[in-house]
Amino acid sequence: MTSEFDRQIAVTRQDESTYAADLAAGWAVGGGLNGGYLLAVVGNALRHTFPDKPDPIAMSAYYLSASTAGPATVSVDVRRAGGSLATAAVDLRQGDDVRITALATYGDLGRLGDDVRTTADEPDMPPPDRCVPNTMAPPEVRAIAPLMDRFDMRFHPDHVGWAVGEPSGNGVLSAWFRLADDREPDPISLLLVVDALPPVTFDLGMPGWAPTLELTAHVRARPAPGWLKVRHATRNLAGGMFEEDCEVWDSAGRLVAQSRQLARQPRT
Amino acid sequence: MTSEFDRQIAVTRQDESTYAADLAAGWAVGGGLNGGYLLAVVGNALRHTFPDKPDPIAMSAYYLSASTAGPATVSVDVRRAGGSLATAAVDLRQGDDVRITALATYGDLGRLGDDVRTTADEPDMPPPDRCVPNTMAPPEVRAIAPLMDRFDMRFHPDHVGWAVGEPSGNGVLSAWFRLADDREPDPISLLLVVDALPPVTFDLGMPGWAPTLELTAHVRARPAPGWLKVRHATRNLAGGMFEEDCEVWDSAGRLVAQSRQLARQPRT
Repeated sequence: MTSEFDRQIAVTRQDESTYAADLAAGWAVGGGLNGGYLLAVVGNALRHTFPDKPDPIAMSAYYLSASTAGPATVSVDVRRAGGSLATAAVDLRQGDDVRITALATYGDLGRLGDDVRTTADEPDMPPPDRCVPNTMAPPEVRAIAPLMDRFDMRFHPDHVGWAVGEPSGNGVLSAWFRLADDREPDPISLLLVVDALPPVTFDLGMPGWAPTLELTAHVRARPAPGWLKVRHATRNLAGGMFEEDCEVWDSAGRLVAQSRQLARQPRT
Repeated sequence: MTSEFDRQIAVTRQDESTYAADLAAGWAVGGGLNGGYLLAVVGNALRHTFPDKPDPIAMSAYYLSASTAGPATVSVDVRRAGGSLATAAVDLRQGDDVRITALATYGDLGRLGDDVRTTADEPDMPPPDRCVPNTMAPPEVRAIAPLMDRFDMRFHPDHVGWAVGEPSGNGVLSAWFRLADDREPDPISLLLVVDALPPVTFDLGMPGWAPTLELTAHVRARPAPGWLKVRHATRNLAGGMFEEDCEVWDSAGRLVAQSRQLARQPRT
């Protein structure tokens, strides 16, 4: 367990339904810790809860308050355990404050059928070395997003105009993604990946933090090792909120995770 | 309260956090009652819980067991009530069995800003009288879906080949929609609408019931009166599951609701 990610999502079982975690400062973004990081901590506690159903299939999290680095408690209320899928309600708390409350269904992705009839188009990306690395992100972006240092991201050159003050206005961002220490992707890390890129509102000319209200992720397959392709898009910015859809494709060309979140539009 | 829908989603408050409902047989489909109908019952209980925040903004439901006509109990656990949004965890039970467990955030859609920058394309539909009414659905479909009699649906002629044994294979369904008794849409009825059409797998040549594992709906605006346009699509059928995205557009051309569900592929 040498990877930074695994060390920092680690949980210690306190009793049958409670786990202790120590949230790490390196995942901060905007006014709190990254929502995907919190999902991965919760996901890790559930993996321990359901040893024969190790994989997240669906997880829906509602973000109630901003989290901070330091101790946290994950409490798990198993709602259904029989059969091939298990469902639980989960709270992640710090002190008396609930940070996120979530529902999740777990199973064994290795036992699903091999029949794949995906019709979604894999994002067409230039090779990583012809994309724009996150190390080139402008200082004001890195200042609000220390978590970017946890990642090796290579942005599609057509989707990175916001970095030079020329957002496309299309509401699309895509990037190659891996963890900076080359820890290979797995179903738990995909819970992080679906919320790792900057908000897609950057591409609409709205820099700044976009707090998530709700995020649901579906993990559809165990990812192959190597680079992931991540694509975010929004099509409905209205009334001060926007939806952000995310797709994660693995190096074998499989759509391994999909998510949608509802977030508040950044204040301009 | 003369509409069938309003009568059949009615709840009676039992105590501060518990509501009684009487689920109606007319909403049956496949092996249980329609999932959207259950969302609307839950949504109605939450509307009573948060009188100053009458509208569902986001709701995520996990389906644990099939429901049947008859008495049910909705229990609400308020998780956050301050500010402009409130969040609750909700169970819908029959006897000792939890049918669905859900998380939801409520607010006041009338108080959101008027700034609408939707880039999604409104479905291009022929007029309702040039579409295919649900009354023409084949007997085997109506037999497993009595709930279709609750609706006036007019299917896009290009998306109804499944009704004559010629599914397009595209994984898209769209239809005009209103309640059969002309009850006008509102945010609560949109929770029904997002799960009212036949499964999009019909268009992939897979007739039959597609049990929902998880469904998340975002209600983004109060719908204008009149016909709704509803579009379902799937892009990732794999491993025995598929995601189904739904968009609901109102008669004023606004994208008023979006949902995504993860469902099991029908057995063929």
